[in-house]
Amino acid sequence: MKKVAVILSGCGVFDGAEITESVLTLLHIAKAGASYQCFAPDIEQMHTLNHLTGEEMSPNRNVLVESARIARGDIKALGELNCNEFDALILPGGFGAAKNLSDFAVNGAQASVQAEVLASCQAFAEAKKPAGYMCIAPAMLPLVYGKGVKATIGNDAETAAAINMIGGDHQDCPVDEIVIDQNHRVVSTPAYMLASSIVEADAGISKLVNQVLAMS
Amino acid sequence: MKKVAVILSGCGVFDGAEITESVLTLLHIAKAGASYQCFAPDIEQMHTLNHLTGEEMSPNRNVLVESARIARGDIKALGELNCNEFDALILPGGFGAAKNLSDFAVNGAQASVQAEVLASCQAFAEAKKPAGYMCIAPAMLPLVYGKGVKATIGNDAETAAAINMIGGDHQDCPVDEIVIDQNHRVVSTPAYMLASSIVEADAGISKLVNQVLAMS
Repeated sequence: MKKVAVILSGCGVFDGAEITESVLTLLHIAKAGASYQCFAPDIEQMHTLNHLTGEEMSPNRNVLVESARIARGDIKALGELNCNEFDALILPGGFGAAKNLSDFAVNGAQASVQAEVLASCQAFAEAKKPAGYMCIAPAMLPLVYGKGVKATIGNDAETAAAINMIGGDHQDCPVDEIVIDQNHRVVSTPAYMLASSIVEADAGISKLVNQVLAMS
Repeated sequence: MKKVAVILSGCGVFDGAEITESVLTLLHIAKAGASYQCFAPDIEQMHTLNHLTGEEMSPNRNVLVESARIARGDIKALGELNCNEFDALILPGGFGAAKNLSDFAVNGAQASVQAEVLASCQAFAEAKKPAGYMCIAPAMLPLVYGKGVKATIGNDAETAAAINMIGGDHQDCPVDEIVIDQNHRVVSTPAYMLASSIVEADAGISKLVNQVLAMS
């Protein structure tokens, strides 16, 4: 049975992992007959937002503790992720990918990836194990894989330009499709960067998961 | 297009709505060509649990505010739910159904349903509009529909006995099946009361959603 490591970034689209993307990722991994283990960095969130009003809440929350809600408690700290134990890596999106796993939401073209996240993602890249990044998570790809990596976040011109400034090769992509970088063995899909319904998000996420598994 | 009201009870299996059940409910409603609107009561949770350690956290959280995470912000207070605007009602499970929507987790056979939740659920019952309850949420059915209503939470003898003491007619049911009470027009499925994988949960939830829509 193939094993997939899934890195979550909290629990909620505006300050953490996009919940629907995360659940659909796990669903399609399991439907394909593979297994998964969720991980998250044991760090404070950039901030915590009330998802009803959009206002900031205090106290701030911890990425690992909140991610555990999506994983029904079955989650490990990212420091325990050993690439050798897995066949592939997938990162759902949500603002957590751009606020907690990286600072792309704040720094755009000058973004950096959180050290532990960068080390984990680069371990899969160096081992030539396939990976899938969805929604805004592909903004991290040039920082993980280096210049020229193909990535999509859909078709938002400003975000695409920032990814290209970091060194990526952004490809416009519809919500129900994926972009494959065969050289780097990495797949991306727009998910809720474009999706106007859960069915649209599901179409692209299903394709991404199955492509990543096929490459492993 | 058929419209389904979905009542959430927070965000996380141990103190709120079971996230996977909630997302899969929305997925199958949309896949069937229907639309949904999420609702949650604007009340404090019974308590808030760290899903990594199981320990209680403070400050406590609000059911509506946390449910908004699952709904990507598109949620209304339960007081705004007008049964006339919907064709059907679905309640995902999670401990939130037994801690926030009702007090079944604490009071068992002496349980009561939160007043606003009871009024909303009874409005659908009285209008003969179909409803679906999953996981531990069916424990509320005797209090909503009265004595003799058929319900399943799977096969846990103690929980089934408590439901029968409230007046329900518990039917054992495997994880990938549903129990239909044709007279009361209500459907239930065990979901994560029994599921050992997301694929198992998905099978029963898919059947429940499609049965509820077929009855509407």
